[in-house]
Amino acid sequence: MSILKLEILTRVAFAPFGDVIETEGRESYPINKGTTQRFHDLASVQIADAQGRAGISLARGNAFNYPLSITMLERHPLGSQAWIPCNQTPFVAIVAPNGPNDTPDESGLRAFYVQGNQGVNYHRGTWHHPLMTLGQQGDFIVVDRVGEGENCDEHELSKSYVVDGSYAGSQMVQA
Amino acid sequence: MSILKLEILTRVAFAPFGDVIETEGRESYPINKGTTQRFHDLASVQIADAQGRAGISLARGNAFNYPLSITMLERHPLGSQAWIPCNQTPFVAIVAPNGPNDTPDESGLRAFYVQGNQGVNYHRGTWHHPLMTLGQQGDFIVVDRVGEGENCDEHELSKSYVVDGSYAGSQMVQA
Repeated sequence: MSILKLEILTRVAFAPFGDVIETEGRESYPINKGTTQRFHDLASVQIADAQGRAGISLARGNAFNYPLSITMLERHPLGSQAWIPCNQTPFVAIVAPNGPNDTPDESGLRAFYVQGNQGVNYHRGTWHHPLMTLGQQGDFIVVDRVGEGENCDEHELSKSYVVDGSYAGSQMVQA
Repeated sequence: MSILKLEILTRVAFAPFGDVIETEGRESYPINKGTTQRFHDLASVQIADAQGRAGISLARGNAFNYPLSITMLERHPLGSQAWIPCNQTPFVAIVAPNGPNDTPDESGLRAFYVQGNQGVNYHRGTWHHPLMTLGQQGDFIVVDRVGEGENCDEHELSKSYVVDGSYAGSQMVQA
Protein backbone atom coordinates (compact mmCIF):
# COMPACT_ATOMS: atom_id res chain seq x y z
CA MET A 1 0.00 0.00 0.00
CA SER A 2 1.23 3.46 -0.86
CA ILE A 3 0.01 6.94 -0.02
CA LEU A 4 -1.11 9.55 -2.54
CA LYS A 5 -0.99 13.08 -1.23
CA LEU A 6 -4.05 15.07 -2.20
CA GLU A 7 -3.10 18.16 -4.23
CA ILE A 8 -4.87 21.42 -4.96
CA LEU A 9 -6.33 21.37 -8.46
CA THR A 10 -4.88 24.08 -10.67
CA ARG A 11 -4.89 24.52 -14.40
CA VAL A 12 -1.10 24.25 -14.58
CA ALA A 13 -0.79 21.16 -12.38
CA PHE A 14 -3.56 19.35 -14.27
CA ALA A 15 -2.46 20.37 -17.77
CA PRO A 16 -0.77 17.03 -18.62
CA PHE A 17 -4.04 15.21 -17.90
CA GLY A 18 -6.84 17.51 -18.94
CA ASP A 19 -8.63 20.83 -18.52
CA VAL A 20 -9.90 22.52 -15.36
CA ILE A 21 -13.38 24.00 -15.74
CA GLU A 22 -13.74 26.95 -13.35
CA THR A 23 -14.38 30.69 -13.23
CA GLU A 24 -11.91 31.60 -10.46
CA GLY A 25 -8.96 33.49 -11.88
CA ARG A 26 -10.03 32.94 -15.48
CA GLU A 27 -10.73 35.51 -18.15
CA SER A 28 -14.25 36.29 -19.28
CA TYR A 29 -16.09 38.67 -21.56
CA PRO A 30 -19.62 40.05 -21.64
CA ILE A 31 -22.31 38.62 -23.92
CA ASN A 32 -26.05 39.24 -24.26
CA LYS A 33 -25.69 43.02 -23.93
CA GLY A 34 -23.72 42.70 -20.75
CA THR A 35 -26.22 40.61 -18.81
CA THR A 36 -23.97 37.53 -18.90
CA GLN A 37 -20.20 36.95 -18.54
CA ARG A 38 -18.80 34.11 -20.64
CA PHE A 39 -15.74 32.10 -19.55
CA HIS A 40 -15.09 30.78 -22.99
CA ASP A 41 -13.83 27.39 -24.12
CA LEU A 42 -12.43 26.16 -20.83
CA ALA A 43 -12.35 22.60 -22.15
CA SER A 44 -12.26 21.04 -25.58
CA VAL A 45 -14.39 17.98 -26.32
CA GLN A 46 -12.26 15.43 -28.16
CA ILE A 47 -13.88 12.81 -30.38
CA ALA A 48 -11.45 10.51 -32.19
CA ASP A 49 -13.66 8.55 -34.56
CA ALA A 50 -16.38 9.19 -37.12
CA GLN A 51 -18.78 6.79 -35.37
CA GLY A 52 -18.65 8.86 -32.21
CA ARG A 53 -20.25 12.18 -31.32
CA ALA A 54 -20.32 14.37 -28.24
CA GLY A 55 -23.20 13.78 -25.83
CA ILE A 56 -24.30 15.37 -22.58
CA SER A 57 -25.22 13.00 -19.76
CA LEU A 58 -25.85 13.32 -16.05
CA ALA A 59 -24.36 11.08 -13.38
CA ARG A 60 -25.28 10.64 -9.72
CA GLY A 61 -22.32 9.53 -7.64
CA ASN A 62 -22.48 7.87 -4.25
CA ALA A 63 -20.73 9.54 -1.32
CA PHE A 64 -17.17 8.42 -0.63
CA ASN A 65 -15.35 9.14 2.59
CA TYR A 66 -11.72 9.00 3.65
CA PRO A 67 -9.74 6.84 3.67
CA LEU A 68 -10.08 6.49 -0.11
CA SER A 69 -8.37 3.42 -1.50
CA ILE A 70 -7.90 2.67 -5.18
CA THR A 71 -6.72 -0.43 -7.03
CA MET A 72 -7.48 0.37 -10.71
CA LEU A 73 -7.57 3.09 -13.35
CA GLU A 74 -9.44 3.41 -16.63
CA ARG A 75 -9.12 5.44 -19.82
CA HIS A 76 -11.29 6.31 -22.81
CA PRO A 77 -9.26 5.90 -26.00
CA LEU A 78 -11.86 7.48 -28.29
CA GLY A 79 -12.63 10.73 -26.54
CA SER A 80 -12.31 13.18 -23.68
CA GLN A 81 -14.58 13.03 -20.64
CA ALA A 82 -15.71 16.01 -18.55
CA TRP A 83 -17.15 15.90 -15.02
CA ILE A 84 -18.71 19.07 -13.64
CA PRO A 85 -20.73 19.26 -10.39
CA CYS A 86 -24.37 20.38 -10.60
CA ASN A 87 -24.70 20.95 -6.89
CA GLN A 88 -21.28 22.00 -5.67
CA THR A 89 -20.13 18.54 -4.61
CA PRO A 90 -16.34 18.19 -4.36
CA PHE A 91 -14.67 15.08 -5.69
CA VAL A 92 -11.26 13.51 -6.13
CA ALA A 93 -9.60 13.18 -9.53
CA ILE A 94 -6.83 10.58 -9.62
CA VAL A 95 -4.73 10.41 -12.78
CA ALA A 96 -1.53 8.90 -14.09
CA PRO A 97 0.60 9.37 -17.21
CA ASN A 98 0.82 6.54 -19.68
CA GLY A 99 3.89 4.37 -19.22
CA PRO A 100 6.18 2.58 -21.65
CA ASN A 101 4.01 -0.56 -21.70
CA ASP A 102 0.90 1.42 -22.59
CA THR A 103 -0.28 1.04 -18.99
CA PRO A 104 -0.42 3.65 -16.21
CA ASP A 105 2.97 4.84 -14.94
CA GLU A 106 2.26 4.32 -11.25
CA SER A 107 5.26 6.40 -10.25
CA GLY A 108 3.41 9.37 -11.71
CA LEU A 109 0.06 8.87 -9.95
CA ARG A 110 -1.49 12.16 -8.78
CA ALA A 111 -4.61 12.82 -6.70
CA PHE A 112 -6.35 16.19 -6.98
CA TYR A 113 -9.03 17.69 -4.75
CA VAL A 114 -11.67 19.14 -7.07
CA GLN A 115 -13.67 21.87 -5.33
CA GLY A 116 -17.42 21.99 -5.78
CA ASN A 117 -17.08 24.99 -8.10
CA GLN A 118 -14.59 23.24 -10.37
CA GLY A 119 -14.82 20.51 -12.95
CA VAL A 120 -12.31 18.48 -14.92
CA ASN A 121 -12.11 17.32 -18.50
CA TYR A 122 -9.88 14.27 -18.88
CA HIS A 123 -8.12 14.39 -22.21
CA ARG A 124 -8.65 11.49 -24.55
CA GLY A 125 -6.75 8.46 -23.31
CA THR A 126 -5.83 9.87 -19.89
CA TRP A 127 -5.68 7.19 -17.19
CA HIS A 128 -8.00 8.15 -14.35
CA HIS A 129 -9.98 6.64 -11.51
CA PRO A 130 -13.79 6.48 -11.73
CA LEU A 131 -15.77 9.17 -9.92
CA MET A 132 -15.32 9.53 -6.17
CA THR A 133 -17.51 12.28 -4.78
CA LEU A 134 -16.61 13.42 -1.29
CA GLY A 135 -18.85 13.35 1.74
CA GLN A 136 -22.21 13.50 -0.02
CA GLN A 137 -24.03 12.16 -3.05
CA GLY A 138 -23.38 14.39 -6.04
CA ASP A 139 -24.91 15.02 -9.43
CA PHE A 140 -22.55 15.74 -12.30
CA ILE A 141 -22.77 16.84 -15.88
CA VAL A 142 -20.77 14.49 -18.05
CA VAL A 143 -19.68 15.46 -21.56
CA ASP A 144 -18.08 12.63 -23.46
CA ARG A 145 -18.11 10.51 -26.56
CA VAL A 146 -21.33 8.66 -27.31
CA GLY A 147 -21.59 5.91 -29.90
CA GLU A 148 -20.80 2.33 -30.80
CA GLY A 149 -17.34 0.88 -30.23
CA GLU A 150 -15.17 0.00 -27.25
CA ASN A 151 -14.19 3.17 -25.40
CA CYS A 152 -13.05 2.00 -21.97
CA ASP A 153 -9.77 0.33 -21.05
CA GLU A 154 -9.38 -0.81 -17.46
CA HIS A 155 -6.08 -1.56 -15.71
CA GLU A 156 -5.48 -3.15 -12.31
CA LEU A 157 -2.70 -1.40 -10.43
CA SER A 158 0.25 -3.32 -8.98
CA LYS A 159 -0.89 -2.48 -5.46
CA SER A 160 -3.47 -0.38 -3.66
CA TYR A 161 -3.02 3.33 -3.04
CA VAL A 162 -4.63 5.34 -0.27
CA VAL A 163 -5.36 9.04 -0.62
CA ASP A 164 -4.00 11.21 2.17
CA GLY A 165 -6.77 13.74 2.70
CA SER A 166 -4.76 16.02 4.97
CA TYR A 167 -4.73 18.87 2.46
CA ALA A 168 -6.45 21.74 4.26
CA GLY A 169 -9.10 22.37 1.62
CA SER A 170 -10.49 18.91 2.07
CA GLN A 171 -10.82 18.98 5.83
CA MET A 172 -14.45 20.03 5.62
CA VAL A 173 -15.41 16.75 4.05
CA GLN A 174 -13.37 14.46 6.27
CA ALA A 175 -15.51 11.55 7.36
CA MET B 1 -47.30 44.09 -26.34
CA SER B 2 -48.39 40.48 -25.97
CA ILE B 3 -48.29 38.00 -23.12
CA LEU B 4 -46.40 34.71 -23.13
CA LYS B 5 -47.70 32.21 -20.60
CA LEU B 6 -44.89 30.44 -18.78
CA GLU B 7 -45.06 26.66 -19.29
CA ILE B 8 -43.65 23.72 -17.37
CA LEU B 9 -40.59 22.36 -19.15
CA THR B 10 -41.04 18.76 -20.21
CA ARG B 11 -39.15 16.64 -22.69
CA VAL B 12 -42.22 16.25 -24.92
CA ALA B 13 -43.17 19.94 -24.93
CA PHE B 14 -39.62 21.03 -25.68
CA ALA B 15 -38.86 18.36 -28.30
CA PRO B 16 -39.36 20.64 -31.33
CA PHE B 17 -36.73 23.03 -29.96
CA GLY B 18 -34.15 20.93 -28.17
CA ASP B 19 -33.32 18.48 -25.39
CA VAL B 20 -34.15 18.64 -21.69
CA ILE B 21 -31.23 17.68 -19.45
CA GLU B 22 -32.59 16.25 -16.18
CA THR B 23 -32.65 13.13 -14.01
CA GLU B 24 -36.30 13.28 -12.91
CA GLY B 25 -38.32 10.57 -14.59
CA ARG B 26 -35.46 9.52 -16.85
CA GLU B 27 -33.84 6.13 -17.20
CA SER B 28 -30.39 5.42 -15.82
CA TYR B 29 -27.99 2.54 -15.38
CA PRO B 30 -25.18 1.78 -12.96
CA ILE B 31 -21.54 2.36 -13.86
CA ASN B 32 -18.30 2.19 -11.87
CA LYS B 33 -19.30 -1.03 -10.06
CA GLY B 34 -22.58 0.47 -8.96
CA THR B 35 -21.17 3.55 -7.23
CA THR B 36 -22.59 5.88 -9.90
CA GLN B 37 -25.86 6.02 -11.87
CA ARG B 38 -25.55 7.32 -15.43
CA PHE B 39 -28.41 9.15 -17.18
CA HIS B 40 -26.98 8.60 -20.59
CA ASP B 41 -26.95 10.87 -23.62
CA LEU B 42 -29.68 13.28 -22.58
CA ALA B 43 -28.55 15.76 -25.23
CA SER B 44 -26.61 15.52 -28.45
CA VAL B 45 -24.01 18.15 -29.30
CA GLN B 46 -24.49 19.23 -32.92
CA ILE B 47 -21.60 20.72 -34.88
CA ALA B 48 -22.37 21.54 -38.51
CA ASP B 49 -18.99 22.47 -39.95
CA ALA B 50 -15.47 21.10 -40.08
CA GLN B 51 -14.02 24.35 -38.69
CA GLY B 52 -16.07 23.99 -35.52
CA ARG B 53 -15.66 21.74 -32.50
CA ALA B 54 -17.50 21.25 -29.24
CA GLY B 55 -16.26 23.30 -26.31
CA ILE B 56 -17.24 23.57 -22.68
CA SER B 57 -17.61 27.08 -21.27
CA LEU B 58 -19.07 28.61 -18.14
CA ALA B 59 -21.40 31.60 -18.05
CA ARG B 60 -22.46 33.83 -15.16
CA GLY B 61 -25.89 35.34 -15.73
CA ASN B 62 -27.29 38.40 -13.97
CA ALA B 63 -30.52 38.05 -12.03
CA PHE B 64 -33.73 38.86 -13.92
CA ASN B 65 -37.04 39.45 -12.23
CA TYR B 66 -40.64 39.57 -13.43
CA PRO B 67 -42.01 41.17 -15.45
CA LEU B 68 -39.69 39.78 -18.14
CA SER B 69 -39.97 41.58 -21.45
CA ILE B 70 -38.35 40.44 -24.68
CA THR B 71 -37.94 42.12 -28.06
CA MET B 72 -35.50 39.83 -29.94
CA LEU B 73 -34.42 36.24 -30.52
CA GLU B 74 -31.19 34.69 -31.73
CA ARG B 75 -30.08 31.39 -33.22
CA HIS B 76 -26.81 29.55 -33.83
CA PRO B 77 -26.80 28.14 -37.36
CA LEU B 78 -23.64 26.06 -36.91
CA GLY B 79 -24.37 24.13 -33.76
CA SER B 80 -26.46 23.27 -30.73
CA GLN B 81 -26.12 25.14 -27.44
CA ALA B 82 -26.68 23.68 -23.98
CA TRP B 83 -27.28 25.62 -20.75
CA ILE B 84 -27.14 23.71 -17.47
CA PRO B 85 -27.17 25.34 -14.01
CA CYS B 86 -24.14 24.77 -11.74
CA ASN B 87 -25.89 26.04 -8.64
CA GLN B 88 -29.56 25.22 -9.07
CA THR B 89 -30.59 28.57 -10.51
CA PRO B 90 -33.86 28.47 -12.47
CA PHE B 91 -34.13 30.31 -15.74
CA VAL B 92 -36.56 31.01 -18.57
CA ALA B 93 -36.13 29.48 -22.02
CA ILE B 94 -38.05 31.31 -24.74
CA VAL B 95 -38.14 29.71 -28.16
CA ALA B 96 -39.94 29.95 -31.50
CA PRO B 97 -40.16 27.80 -34.60
CA ASN B 98 -38.66 29.09 -37.79
CA GLY B 99 -41.16 30.77 -40.10
CA PRO B 100 -41.58 30.87 -43.86
CA ASN B 101 -39.29 33.91 -44.21
CA ASP B 102 -36.48 32.20 -42.30
CA THR B 103 -37.32 34.38 -39.30
CA PRO B 104 -39.02 33.40 -36.02
CA ASP B 105 -42.69 32.47 -36.32
CA GLU B 106 -43.96 34.75 -33.56
CA SER B 107 -47.29 32.96 -33.43
CA GLY B 108 -45.39 29.95 -32.13
CA LEU B 109 -43.42 31.68 -29.36
CA ARG B 110 -43.19 29.57 -26.18
CA ALA B 111 -41.75 30.42 -22.76
CA PHE B 112 -40.60 27.57 -20.48
CA TYR B 113 -39.73 27.67 -16.80
CA VAL B 114 -36.50 25.71 -16.40
CA GLN B 115 -36.10 24.42 -12.86
CA GLY B 116 -32.74 24.64 -11.16
CA ASN B 117 -32.25 20.89 -11.59
CA GLN B 118 -32.91 21.01 -15.34
CA GLY B 119 -30.97 22.22 -18.33
CA VAL B 120 -31.77 22.72 -21.99
CA ASN B 121 -29.91 22.04 -25.21
CA TYR B 122 -31.17 24.21 -28.06
CA HIS B 123 -30.93 22.31 -31.31
CA ARG B 124 -28.84 23.83 -34.06
CA GLY B 125 -30.68 26.80 -35.57
CA THR B 126 -33.43 27.02 -32.94
CA TRP B 127 -34.58 30.60 -32.34
CA HIS B 128 -34.25 31.40 -28.63
CA HIS B 129 -33.85 34.32 -26.27
CA PRO B 130 -30.50 34.91 -24.53
CA LEU B 131 -30.17 33.67 -20.95
CA MET B 132 -32.54 35.04 -18.34
CA THR B 133 -31.82 33.60 -14.91
CA LEU B 134 -34.55 34.09 -12.37
CA GLY B 135 -34.24 35.88 -9.06
CA GLN B 136 -30.52 35.40 -8.48
CA GLN B 137 -27.23 35.43 -10.32
CA GLY B 138 -26.53 32.00 -11.77
CA ASP B 139 -23.55 30.07 -13.10
CA PHE B 140 -24.14 27.77 -16.05
CA ILE B 141 -22.25 25.19 -17.99
CA VAL B 142 -22.46 25.95 -21.68
CA VAL B 143 -21.69 23.33 -24.31
CA ASP B 144 -21.65 24.68 -27.82
CA ARG B 145 -19.69 25.10 -31.01
CA VAL B 146 -16.34 26.83 -30.72
CA GLY B 147 -14.39 28.07 -33.72
CA GLU B 148 -14.08 30.66 -36.44
CA GLY B 149 -17.08 31.70 -38.51
CA GLU B 150 -20.34 33.55 -37.92
CA ASN B 151 -22.58 31.50 -35.65
CA CYS B 152 -25.16 33.95 -34.33
CA ASP B 153 -28.17 35.38 -36.16
CA GLU B 154 -30.21 37.98 -34.31
CA HIS B 155 -33.78 38.98 -35.13
CA GLU B 156 -35.84 41.88 -33.75
CA LEU B 157 -39.41 40.82 -33.03
CA SER B 158 -42.37 42.77 -34.44
CA LYS B 159 -43.37 43.84 -30.93
CA SER B 160 -42.44 43.20 -27.32
CA TYR B 161 -43.65 40.18 -25.40
CA VAL B 162 -44.03 39.94 -21.63
CA VAL B 163 -43.74 36.64 -19.78
CA ASP B 164 -46.66 35.85 -17.49
CA GLY B 165 -44.96 34.27 -14.49
CA SER B 166 -48.14 33.05 -12.85
CA TYR B 167 -47.26 29.37 -13.33
CA ALA B 168 -47.17 27.96 -9.83
CA GLY B 169 -43.65 26.54 -10.02
CA SER B 170 -42.21 29.96 -10.58
CA GLN B 171 -43.93 31.71 -7.68
CA MET B 172 -40.94 31.14 -5.46
CA VAL B 173 -38.80 33.40 -7.61
CA GLN B 174 -41.32 36.17 -8.14
CA ALA B 175 -39.67 39.51 -7.58
